[in-house]
Amino acid sequence: MKKGLGEESPRIGMYRVKLYLLTSNKGKVGEIARIAVKYGVELEAVNAPKLEVQSNSLREIALYSAINYYISSGGMPVLTEDAGLFIRALNGFPGPYSSYVYRTLGVRGVLKLMDGVEDREAYFESAVAIVYDGLVIAETARVNGSISKEPRGEGGFGFDPIFIPQGFTRTFAEMSIDEKNSISHRAKAVAKALESLLNLLKV
Amino acid sequence: MKKGLGEESPRIGMYRVKLYLLTSNKGKVGEIARIAVKYGVELEAVNAPKLEVQSNSLREIALYSAINYYISSGGMPVLTEDAGLFIRALNGFPGPYSSYVYRTLGVRGVLKLMDGVEDREAYFESAVAIVYDGLVIAETARVNGSISKEPRGEGGFGFDPIFIPQGFTRTFAEMSIDEKNSISHRAKAVAKALESLLNLLKV
Repeated sequence: MKKGLGEESPRIGMYRVKLYLLTSNKGKVGEIARIAVKYGVELEAVNAPKLEVQSNSLREIALYSAINYYISSGGMPVLTEDAGLFIRALNGFPGPYSSYVYRTLGVRGVLKLMDGVEDREAYFESAVAIVYDGLVIAETARVNGSISKEPRGEGGFGFDPIFIPQGFTRTFAEMSIDEKNSISHRAKAVAKALESLLNLLKV
Repeated sequence: MKKGLGEESPRIGMYRVKLYLLTSNKGKVGEIARIAVKYGVELEAVNAPKLEVQSNSLREIALYSAINYYISSGGMPVLTEDAGLFIRALNGFPGPYSSYVYRTLGVRGVLKLMDGVEDREAYFESAVAIVYDGLVIAETARVNGSISKEPRGEGGFGFDPIFIPQGFTRTFAEMSIDEKNSISHRAKAVAKALESLLNLLKV
């Protein structure tokens, strides 16, 4: 179901819209697919090279990679998502570089940096960009919370085992996908972006 | 002395070539200018927006920002330099994100991560990209060394106070610019790139 620049939007079976989700992260695919299906949006994960710019703005990172994929693929409708954990006592670190920091220092490294630090405040932010038939959409959302003293839970991915959302005692990794989706930065940003798209398309 | 795409290369007074150095880091300007003058290359620092891609390859980061500046400026001859400190025990962290990590965690944060870590091995890598009249050049260089237990010295910038180059007992920050330039990753990469450029231009 590939389509070229200027061709008609794809309509596939029961779905209203199809988007290619540019990621190699299976955890992301699982979370985002559950939101998309509620909106009648079909998602297909593609693991293509992703141009990521260095920026403190997740919105800018998500937009660049979506636009770059859209152009280099000849106009495939695309959704990208970028997220980061921003820890107040560490001046926002690891922020937009969360996945790099996860791969190098891991959860243990971040806990080491927070050793003896009383201020545990942090937030997760997600930015979602969609490029579809020349429409460009970007939405962001945050969830406030705090950094736990120890990693807890087997669910989620990345820094989920050390993030406790506000109003909860469990970490994101101790929640089911649906429970995490009911409050998460990612679920909110994806929902906002899909609503914008469907409104603009009037489908 | 701005020039457009396709116009003749600039030749200014005693200099053989002029390049715009894309950086807002005064420490970099000081080091690179001293190398350039030896090659008869005039440098002018410009603090324009710099497109930085997220990549583990400093070469790729330097190339993207140079090419992007060359295109968006209408063909100004440009030199970009990106450097990173790669610490073996931290899986290469902070690597290509060294300046972000310096701004958020600082020297103290990296020392905290290295607390109790016996393997202190690290290297600095520099990548230099030049785009000049459509010529595209990229060179890299490394200097091996180790991470000190405490920050020492007032010279240099970034992580210089905790990097001891192999064969020395002092940190980069305890050296003069000329002494640092005689062994540094940056000086070597700049020299290689300028030699390549002058060879290609036959000036």
